[in-house]
Amino acid sequence: LPSKLPDVGSTIFTEMSALAQQCQAINLGQGFPDYPPPEALIQAVGEAMRQGCNQYAPMAGLPQLREAIASKVMAQHGRSYSTESEITVTAGATEALMSSLLALTHPGDEVLLIDPAYDLYAPATRLAGAEAVRVPMRAPQAGDTTFRIDWNRVESALTPRTRMLVLNFPHNPTGLTLKIEDLDALEALIARHPILLLSDEAYEHIVFDGLTHLSPVSRAALAERTVLVSSFGKTFHATGWKIGYCCAPARVMAEIRKVHQFTVFSVSTPMQAGIARYLPEADLAELSGFYQKKRDRLLAGLKDTVLRPLHSEGTFFLLVDTRALGTEPEKTLAVRLTREIGVASIPVSAFYADPARPEANHGLLRLCFAKLDATLDQGLERLRGLE
Amino acid sequence: LPSKLPDVGSTIFTEMSALAQQCQAINLGQGFPDYPPPEALIQAVGEAMRQGCNQYAPMAGLPQLREAIASKVMAQHGRSYSTESEITVTAGATEALMSSLLALTHPGDEVLLIDPAYDLYAPATRLAGAEAVRVPMRAPQAGDTTFRIDWNRVESALTPRTRMLVLNFPHNPTGLTLKIEDLDALEALIARHPILLLSDEAYEHIVFDGLTHLSPVSRAALAERTVLVSSFGKTFHATGWKIGYCCAPARVMAEIRKVHQFTVFSVSTPMQAGIARYLPEADLAELSGFYQKKRDRLLAGLKDTVLRPLHSEGTFFLLVDTRALGTEPEKTLAVRLTREIGVASIPVSAFYADPARPEANHGLLRLCFAKLDATLDQGLERLRGLE
Ligand SMILES: CSCCC(=O)C(=O)O
Ligand SMILES: CSCCC(=O)C(=O)O
Repeated sequence: LPSKLPDVGSTIFTEMSALAQQCQAINLGQGFPDYPPPEALIQAVGEAMRQGCNQYAPMAGLPQLREAIASKVMAQHGRSYSTESEITVTAGATEALMSSLLALTHPGDEVLLIDPAYDLYAPATRLAGAEAVRVPMRAPQAGDTTFRIDWNRVESALTPRTRMLVLNFPHNPTGLTLKIEDLDALEALIARHPILLLSDEAYEHIVFDGLTHLSPVSRAALAERTVLVSSFGKTFHATGWKIGYCCAPARVMAEIRKVHQFTVFSVSTPMQAGIARYLPEADLAELSGFYQKKRDRLLAGLKDTVLRPLHSEGTFFLLVDTRALGTEPEKTLAVRLTREIGVASIPVSAFYADPARPEANHGLLRLCFAKLDATLDQGLERLRGLE
Repeated sequence: LPSKLPDVGSTIFTEMSALAQQCQAINLGQGFPDYPPPEALIQAVGEAMRQGCNQYAPMAGLPQLREAIASKVMAQHGRSYSTESEITVTAGATEALMSSLLALTHPGDEVLLIDPAYDLYAPATRLAGAEAVRVPMRAPQAGDTTFRIDWNRVESALTPRTRMLVLNFPHNPTGLTLKIEDLDALEALIARHPILLLSDEAYEHIVFDGLTHLSPVSRAALAERTVLVSSFGKTFHATGWKIGYCCAPARVMAEIRKVHQFTVFSVSTPMQAGIARYLPEADLAELSGFYQKKRDRLLAGLKDTVLRPLHSEGTFFLLVDTRALGTEPEKTLAVRLTREIGVASIPVSAFYADPARPEANHGLLRLCFAKLDATLDQGLERLRGLE
């Protein structure tokens, strides 16, 4: 049986969560909260089931949820999307990304990824018949607070075959957000190269220190070429519900829907109905403050460890420099810490094409702070034992 | 923007359901019940949400649900599947089919479909980079009660490039079930041609007149090469929940999971938890009787119309011969009946490669009887007006 994805095994998230469970470790690896979604949202889903929302939803999603998404995106980015033809509800951001890549890239096309890159982009590109080309961010040097994207370097990696550039801000795993200057650079780049942008914004509502989440769709010229992808999992503490969405210009969305309808056909009707009822009254603005406190709690606690945190501007994550512990490959270290001190993390090398290579190993681990304060404190206590 | 699926629009199910709604027609088209899932199942999902089952499920599915599926399949077919490596919970049968085709077929491969064929198989094959080859069933001739599969004809369509044969029993749209002789024929065929079988068994619990649902996995030689796909949507009156599963030998399942993890990553945790709790106590055997009564009610009512029913052995569906109404293409007729008498149906031609061609038009419409008796009676009253 020849493999379509010969280099792929279980994802690093599956692997580290399974190991964490086996070792009864504090799981600061895979990105999910250990607290529940809002009670009112759970209630709304329960009511939807009792009120008969149990059969196929329309393929593009329940109209009332698409309306709520359109209002939200308009409030965030000033961009109007047609609920009829430009918004689709998906089985999480994952399915939106897969359906977009399958629909929009062709054999012979190149898809440009910026490393470190979320582990789905490359294999989904491969399944679409296209080829992933990877350009690295500049890893932190002495004096830097974190990674940096060099847009000139990104542009140099474009070829006549490049169909799409995958963006992910707030960025997993670095916590980088997109700035005005980045949008300027993207706008200049797009003017010279008519490529598509696939913008993974799963952490759109989690940004710190008064920063605002910027999306390419806030600029008309970029929006014309962008598929905005996001999810309610991170926003509503419900990563297991698997309800996401994508927005794109009608001609692009028509192609995505052709694939979406054969990937899942439609998405859980009661979950959609519950979210549609809850979303308009949800206080999304408070989420950044909620997570900033958690980031800061983890940062404060890390002071008493040998781990040196990098700066995180958003997401559930911050990176720690582990070089005080030696020069093990990141994966080996992550596994060892899970077993030996009972704290699971994610090696940043897993976000590179070949995790074993030196270029992928900067001595960095990703820690997830979407955890109860008690969980964070317990994790920190264990990390203090490291020397 | 070049299209990956240039010949595809919205599915016929989306199109006819939208038209039905617009015309306020009785919708006997798309296959979904107009009654709810069992109250105990709804309760179980609600409890799961309140008990904290809201974060990512394991990629392969909740262990307790995989256990319940293993027991069910063992009881049905005497085949043992490892919960660890041979069962995966999917976003409905749709995602299981898409992930299987993406994972197991390669550019240059052929996938053999038996027409009429569910509308997903060909485009999913195309997205996988493979080519759909279609072999027709024998359409009903004078004296026949319905369609017939000629396995010799199926075998003649195999080439050295054929990777997979897609099976679907109980069959949508004809209602055919698999018989002992069919399994014999398949076993002989497989012995000569080492292909894979993708067996879509979404209607596995709905068979009539004392027939038993047979699966290829009940024969060891076939099971070695079969991906069994099914769903809880039809079984639990919850087509909108989108929870399905697939079972396959470990080496095959390993490839499917590689794709599944990037198609949806995992499937709704509270829905999985609820189904896992409900499934072991569910009386699945009563479902066939429940639907047989509905089929018979529709059959009895059709006697007073000009429509001549074909025989249905299972599923939600029966076909009606409409030739007393003239020789319109099926699609034109289905649209006209929706508009003029307010009854929506599905043209069988939509299950063929090219619905416009004469070979796809036998003057047949598919009616769904997964409806309250009152709905069926109302639909029948309207159909009685036809001449
Ligand atoms: C889909 S499992 C991975 C969750 C996540 O976004 C992460 O941990 O990076
Ligand atoms: C996924 S929509 C189609 C539902 C169905 O199985 C049918 O109507 O044939």
